Amino acid sequence: MLLSEISKKELADFKAVCEKDYADFKAKGLKLDMSRGKPGADQLDIAMPMFDVFTNAESMISEDGTDCRNYGMLTGIKEAKVLFGNLLGVNIDEIIIGGNSSLALMYDAVSRAITHGVYGSEKPWGKYDKIRFLCPAPGYDRHFAICEHFGIEMITIPMHSDGPDMDMIEKLVCEDETIKGIWCVPLYSNPDGIAYSDEVVKRFANLSPKAKDFRIFWDNAYCVHHLTDTPDRILNILEEAKKNGKEDMVFIFASTSKISFPGAGVAIMAASVNNIKQITKLLGIQCISYDKLNQLRHVRFFKDVDGINAHMEKHKQILAPKFNLVLDMLEKELGRLGILEWNKPNGGYFISVNTLNGCAKRVVSLCKEAGVVLTGAGATFPYGKDPDDRNIRLAPTYPPLNELDTAMRLFCICVKLASAEKLLAE
Amino acid sequence: MLLSEISKKELADFKAVCEKDYADFKAKGLKLDMSRGKPGADQLDIAMPMFDVFTNAESMISEDGTDCRNYGMLTGIKEAKVLFGNLLGVNIDEIIIGGNSSLALMYDAVSRAITHGVYGSEKPWGKYDKIRFLCPAPGYDRHFAICEHFGIEMITIPMHSDGPDMDMIEKLVCEDETIKGIWCVPLYSNPDGIAYSDEVVKRFANLSPKAKDFRIFWDNAYCVHHLTDTPDRILNILEEAKKNGKEDMVFIFASTSKISFPGAGVAIMAASVNNIKQITKLLGIQCISYDKLNQLRHVRFFKDVDGINAHMEKHKQILAPKFNLVLDMLEKELGRLGILEWNKPNGGYFISVNTLNGCAKRVVSLCKEAGVVLTGAGATFPYGKDPDDRNIRLAPTYPPLNELDTAMRLFCICVKLASAEKLLAE
Repeated sequence: MLLSEISKKELADFKAVCEKDYADFKAKGLKLDMSRGKPGADQLDIAMPMFDVFTNAESMISEDGTDCRNYGMLTGIKEAKVLFGNLLGVNIDEIIIGGNSSLALMYDAVSRAITHGVYGSEKPWGKYDKIRFLCPAPGYDRHFAICEHFGIEMITIPMHSDGPDMDMIEKLVCEDETIKGIWCVPLYSNPDGIAYSDEVVKRFANLSPKAKDFRIFWDNAYCVHHLTDTPDRILNILEEAKKNGKEDMVFIFASTSKISFPGAGVAIMAASVNNIKQITKLLGIQCISYDKLNQLRHVRFFKDVDGINAHMEKHKQILAPKFNLVLDMLEKELGRLGILEWNKPNGGYFISVNTLNGCAKRVVSLCKEAGVVLTGAGATFPYGKDPDDRNIRLAPTYPPLNELDTAMRLFCICVKLASAEKLLAE
Repeated sequence: MLLSEISKKELADFKAVCEKDYADFKAKGLKLDMSRGKPGADQLDIAMPMFDVFTNAESMISEDGTDCRNYGMLTGIKEAKVLFGNLLGVNIDEIIIGGNSSLALMYDAVSRAITHGVYGSEKPWGKYDKIRFLCPAPGYDRHFAICEHFGIEMITIPMHSDGPDMDMIEKLVCEDETIKGIWCVPLYSNPDGIAYSDEVVKRFANLSPKAKDFRIFWDNAYCVHHLTDTPDRILNILEEAKKNGKEDMVFIFASTSKISFPGAGVAIMAASVNNIKQITKLLGIQCISYDKLNQLRHVRFFKDVDGINAHMEKHKQILAPKFNLVLDMLEKELGRLGILEWNKPNGGYFISVNTLNGCAKRVVSLCKEAGVVLTGAGATFPYGKDPDDRNIRLAPTYPPLNELDTAMRLFCICVKLASAEKLLAE
């Protein structure tokens, strides 16, 4: 039965049952957190042998003889550039190995652009009266927060099943020189889990922006984070851009935060040689070197891209059951009611759901009152404002299976209750 | 004999001997580096047991139950705040534990001030037509580089034996509202090795700047880096400033780069509660957390301030002989010639020397030609311009004793040669 098609009387009865179920849950005094894309402790355990790779001072010398304990090597040690260059499909002169946070690399890239501009800028972005970024949404709240922080106006771009709306993007960037950038999570997008199609990547790689210093911020956060045996693949944006002589338009980011350790991983930025040279020069004012021991630790542990892939297979074994639990529960509890839509991602860290219009805030609030914290409704949109108040990002990775089961049962009840409330009020 | 008082004939003979000695050195094909304040490998070896503190996942849990491998704890784990708070004499709500680089914390502090201002700013520093920093010099080239990077005009302040010229500083900051900051290395200043006297610190703590958002950048890089049994001590600037209700004026920085590992240490920022709150809010846009495992590693290894002090005693055992070698050689080779002045620091990483006016560049260039790289002449002044071309920063820590001996022999010859050239030309 579709909830929208039953009588008001039946709806009122349905709501009463939901309220009873909700009250029962509330009485349990739960305290669960499904708000962030955070690996579980069992996932972190997989990489523990990484801390055994150093046996003595000798073992801390990189291939070129650098003592990784000491100063130097601003843009990273060579073997890390090789490993992560291979992972992203870029050369070692097209990569910078950073500290533990790709968010920091992205923030710093925008911050430098504001104060100094990027390669090819006529002037720093901060010298313009107004600059704007395109923000495919639903998207990643921390990307949007960087824009807000620097006073960059955000324009929401709708997401389709093959990526963001390229017609709109092409039109806007070629007409409006205040548009300086766009945020993309091209594989297993946060939160929709969508992979950009080959056509979408090719169209990105061939954009003709009016702003000559426009940049695509390509946050490849989930580049090896597959959940199924039929993973999605995306084209190499830098390679595609080179075919058009437009490689300076692309900033690529990635990290091992969800490969090794969120708090102690390695972050990566990749870009054209021109970009890397310009960034390196400015970066040398900010720091002498990132943590090279941690870079070396990662290289020694993973060895090569096959090593990373084999490691990710273990993550998959842990995560796939959690995603399946959520998807199965949504299907079983809500599949026939017509009150929730969701994606079935082949990878990434989230399941994105859409409630009936106007119900997302209510669902999140109901869950919170009963002890389950979800990502705030609206967080997936620029300025935290979901125009339809319908998108919710579910992050199933952190809770153990039994807690996830409990949290999802509550979630389904809250969706039912909020939907019934809405339909009764119409 | 004073070289300035001998006859031209004697001077010419002296020069000829120097030229012969120099040619002999040049023939050796040396390749030595005394340019940066970099610890030697033997110093790094002392902290190697730090890599044994983690035995399993359990051992990576902080006192409050945080899994340090995962996300969270933006401003650092509590036990690291306690340890380094005790070291610097500040409370745990007055401290942020960062990544591996205090330079990055300083850069970020200036960068945020430019784009957003500091606590109490009427507007971001970048919105002013011109802002200026006071730069006691000789000073640290990387401080000056940050100013140059952000277009902050630098005003050189002379250094005295008890710290920078406070009369000049007090006059300038209370009259000129474009002056937004000052760089200080208060203990074992880079490069002079001077400790700011109690009076100087008290005068700093009681400045009355015209710019209400003026900040003292107090880079306490060498806070425990003593070289003798009669170490210098400085007053706690934050404590002193509190007595005057001016604690918001102070930004303190430190790191373990020269305590544990330059490439993999822990950096620290301390400031008033108002400042820390404002910074934390902005920092949350830049990153989710710094490397907490490395923070915990440091706490587990050092345990407490006594542990750090005991550790620094081992550094002293390695470094004191190097500093003594340099000082003895300068005394023996140049003590009576009246062509070089130098400091005898009780700590820090440098020996600062002053040649006859106009000779520093020549000395550095002669050394380089013969295979010994020194810090570039002028580097210790804003814009790399030493008005008298006389200051050279010697960094004796990195080379082994035998190499240091060779390098210093060459250095003394170069000083003699350059001085003779100058005096003959007069």
